[in-house]
Amino acid sequence: MTADIAPFYAIEISRLAHALKDQGRSIIHMEFGQPSTGAPKAAIEAAHRILDSDGMGYWESTPLKARLAKHYLGSYGVSVDPERFILTCGASPALVLALSAGFKPGARIALARPGYVAYRNVLKALNMVPIEIPCGPEVRFQLTAEALSTLDPAPDGVIIASPANPTGTVIAPDELKAIAEVCRSRGIRILSDEIYHGLTYEAPARSLLEHAPDAWVVSSFSKYFSMVGWRLGWCLAPESHVAAARAYVGNLFLTAPSLSQHAGLIALDSRAELDGHVQTYRRNRRLLLDALPQLGLSRIAPPDGAFYIYADIGHLTDDSLSFCKALLNDTGVCTAPGIDFDPVEGHRFIRFSFAVSADEVEDAITRLVPWFKAKSP
Amino acid sequence: MTADIAPFYAIEISRLAHALKDQGRSIIHMEFGQPSTGAPKAAIEAAHRILDSDGMGYWESTPLKARLAKHYLGSYGVSVDPERFILTCGASPALVLALSAGFKPGARIALARPGYVAYRNVLKALNMVPIEIPCGPEVRFQLTAEALSTLDPAPDGVIIASPANPTGTVIAPDELKAIAEVCRSRGIRILSDEIYHGLTYEAPARSLLEHAPDAWVVSSFSKYFSMVGWRLGWCLAPESHVAAARAYVGNLFLTAPSLSQHAGLIALDSRAELDGHVQTYRRNRRLLLDALPQLGLSRIAPPDGAFYIYADIGHLTDDSLSFCKALLNDTGVCTAPGIDFDPVEGHRFIRFSFAVSADEVEDAITRLVPWFKAKSP
Repeated sequence: MTADIAPFYAIEISRLAHALKDQGRSIIHMEFGQPSTGAPKAAIEAAHRILDSDGMGYWESTPLKARLAKHYLGSYGVSVDPERFILTCGASPALVLALSAGFKPGARIALARPGYVAYRNVLKALNMVPIEIPCGPEVRFQLTAEALSTLDPAPDGVIIASPANPTGTVIAPDELKAIAEVCRSRGIRILSDEIYHGLTYEAPARSLLEHAPDAWVVSSFSKYFSMVGWRLGWCLAPESHVAAARAYVGNLFLTAPSLSQHAGLIALDSRAELDGHVQTYRRNRRLLLDALPQLGLSRIAPPDGAFYIYADIGHLTDDSLSFCKALLNDTGVCTAPGIDFDPVEGHRFIRFSFAVSADEVEDAITRLVPWFKAKSP
Repeated sequence: MTADIAPFYAIEISRLAHALKDQGRSIIHMEFGQPSTGAPKAAIEAAHRILDSDGMGYWESTPLKARLAKHYLGSYGVSVDPERFILTCGASPALVLALSAGFKPGARIALARPGYVAYRNVLKALNMVPIEIPCGPEVRFQLTAEALSTLDPAPDGVIIASPANPTGTVIAPDELKAIAEVCRSRGIRILSDEIYHGLTYEAPARSLLEHAPDAWVVSSFSKYFSMVGWRLGWCLAPESHVAAARAYVGNLFLTAPSLSQHAGLIALDSRAELDGHVQTYRRNRRLLLDALPQLGLSRIAPPDGAFYIYADIGHLTDDSLSFCKALLNDTGVCTAPGIDFDPVEGHRFIRFSFAVSADEVEDAITRLVPWFKAKSP
């Protein structure tokens, strides 16, 4: 075994939730970052047509890569050669691809703690060294240019995530620019995970490519585009590494699902329907934020984007896993424990995902309020 | 960049072929191991139903894992716990998963040369050490128990592929058993790539699990099941490594495409239709074998399975890449150069894939015969 990799505890809790459901309990799934909506209608219609007309072999969609380039021009004002997009089976393999093709074994890669657990684990699996930078509420749980400028020695690379998982916090445009400048001057290669772009509640998220044209970017159709099980993502490689990334993807993964590539092309032009989902998340977020005082939860990360609320429950427990299990057992509300995102401080945090329906959020609040009131000292 | 990984030259030649096609040339694609047929009809019908009824989130199909277990019992007489199946986006990530979760960095892994190029490259990407064993016509281009018993020091693992790519040769059941015994006694962990099972023209291929219950097995729906672009495969982990493999897949890849899992379940019960494709390959193989003397190609690997003929063209060239390009340019027949499979001897080999229609094989032979005749000394 390459490295000792911890399981996702949210999966363990989700299994418990399904077992309770099988016993007839009513469960509200707020443990995963998974839209409860399906793919855009027009994308599904396209999929029906393709199923009947295309043999579906190994294939990388040229139209999709061109459309993604147009998306970057329209959303961020950056011009990228379509050939820099490498289509993958979701953002997870895109991350493996970017790290494999972009860094050497032993590379030291900085990342924020808390953060998405797979960053740390994929780095370990690839024999790279995660340099976790503790990021507390004073920096909105995000990496800063200052933190990267003082890290000694300078890391070989850094993973930036804005909006972030588990907090939903967004790095401000000026800070993003400052980060790009520090990285340029210190020779730190940037990998920007932009999977939650499109899901923002204040200003739209900016791409790191606006400031660092040689950054690696990974993203997917699983969040804003609501196409989780279609397993479609992309890795945008720096010009200098496109050939290496193509050689790697041909060996490690081959192509992305054909049907999903056809449907993804249509999804990129289904903004009205997808923005409707964002309106639902916006309302869910507001409902939860308004309810938090009643739950006695006052220390939360500012949820600028994504569909998460990361809350400090240190006044109630020092064991977030047991806490989530008890919450599930007593109320049927399934959440993710902070230890999935932060091995040091995560024992006193919990993550709610509000990528559910508005009715479910209201139902959840009704269950959560009395439970938290009873728990509070 | 983790390791210096060579591109697939067959992809380069395929691009040339597509460029020629765009110029109006008639091209016969024999460069990839890709069925020209689509998924079974019943699988496509199931996909239509699922598209209209399922939101498709992160999901691992319990029915599919149970059905795969039944498949192993029926085809090989081996009983495996359904929970040992980890569903992946094709055999490529299954291979990455098995190697990552099964071996440590620096592990020495034996494999046959010639062989599928991704074995060598994935090992390099994971900082493992490929130990290539030259396997010539005298051992039917396959690893033997003897070769594994004399390797000094014993490797940590071995990759077995039967039927093999690029040769199609099958390891005889007795030899498979002897290999399992040598590996057991020398502490060599086996990874068996069984992706071409179902595509055999003499006896059906046997699974290494019949002799080595603790072997890792990878396979997919891309060959016999004719579902290439659906990106669905599996890794069958040894009992002792299931938890590790699940932790790795959650970090490196997450789940396989939802729609493909539904369709794959149906494909496993579409044997009559799929066996019809095998009949086409059988006929194509016979046509090619009968035509080879006219082409002056007498030194070929015995194509027991898969859909390849790997032929020695050393009397005609010592540069298989240029040879394939000239062949394509002159005749429109696209093939794969031996250098994709063997960095040492591949310069004098060529691989024909006969996973095309019977008409295309006949057309190809008509074009190949005069061309090879003109080339011959």
